Amino acid sequence: MGKFERGWGDMTAVADNGVNVQALLDAREVLKGAPDAAKFTWRASSKWQGGVHTTITVKDYFGLGQEQSHKAESVFEADHPEVFAAEDNGITPIEYLLVGLASCLSAGVASVAQNRGIQLRSVEAVVEGAHDIRGILGADSDVRNGYNNIKVTFHVDADASKEDIEALVAQSQKRSAVFDALTNPTDVTVEVA
Amino acid sequence: MGKFERGWGDMTAVADNGVNVQALLDAREVLKGAPDAAKFTWRASSKWQGGVHTTITVKDYFGLGQEQSHKAESVFEADHPEVFAAEDNGITPIEYLLVGLASCLSAGVASVAQNRGIQLRSVEAVVEGAHDIRGILGADSDVRNGYNNIKVTFHVDADASKEDIEALVAQSQKRSAVFDALTNPTDVTVEVA
Repeated sequence: MGKFERGWGDMTAVADNGVNVQALLDAREVLKGAPDAAKFTWRASSKWQGGVHTTITVKDYFGLGQEQSHKAESVFEADHPEVFAAEDNGITPIEYLLVGLASCLSAGVASVAQNRGIQLRSVEAVVEGAHDIRGILGADSDVRNGYNNIKVTFHVDADASKEDIEALVAQSQKRSAVFDALTNPTDVTVEVA
Repeated sequence: MGKFERGWGDMTAVADNGVNVQALLDAREVLKGAPDAAKFTWRASSKWQGGVHTTITVKDYFGLGQEQSHKAESVFEADHPEVFAAEDNGITPIEYLLVGLASCLSAGVASVAQNRGIQLRSVEAVVEGAHDIRGILGADSDVRNGYNNIKVTFHVDADASKEDIEALVAQSQKRSAVFDALTNPTDVTVEVA
């Protein structure tokens, strides 16, 4: 194949980012008429291991009107670092929020790129959460317990202009479950059985 | 050792939940006078793997005025489940929020129990997040992208009354970084490098 043909092939290539956008568009239409099926319940179960070390498992969830299950059970460790006089058997609970945010926005970038016919080559992100620990320690009642702010920096290599890439990232934010959960309040009820 | 002595021993036993509360109380006093040292930055780095599958690593963070590092690098996989036409190579990004919430509240229960001299035997929690996926699919603009609500149910076995256990869990919420991050809004900035 000569240079010209390769060039032509590139121009007409259909982007393939591995996202089945048609299935998602079909699901959107189906769920418009079946709102109960769209009601999911995600679950995590935790077991205290001593100190501030906890093991958390995720396997089952409810959705599309019935119990569902991930292909495999996932097990996570959470602890505090040694600078908090703990054993650092896993990442700190609040770091799990950054894990969720990075992956949610990245999945969104891939999905939107697929829908817009933009071929991605790499998508990397660094998420940084500023946290004044005087809040959780009770050292200053004016300092909140959670993050003061979070910054996400994307590095995207794609067959697209900087403007188009910025538009992808902006649309991903607009549809991101985790971005919404962190930027807006959610009602959390805590009970003892 | 006779019955009486065992009984006396139990009554005067110091609770040991493995939490170094004295170190935390000392840190609180030190950080009151050194607010810059209390400014932490937690970080996560992500790399897109194709489709909506992302790998996230957590290792370094900033705190106490300098770069710090967890004892080990932690690597996480996030994906969407097969019912979303994806490969289910890991839990869904939004599920990571439940992992963080369960572990943060459990660490808080252990710390508060230690401070109050209550011996814990087991602490388990189930966290459930109600999520109407019509939001993220763009099927109904009145439906939010994130959780509609989250419910945490604790099962605590401890040398304490139900009332005291409920008070432990309530105090844990009050000091929880993740509980605050989910129940109150945080400013999240997303940029393309």
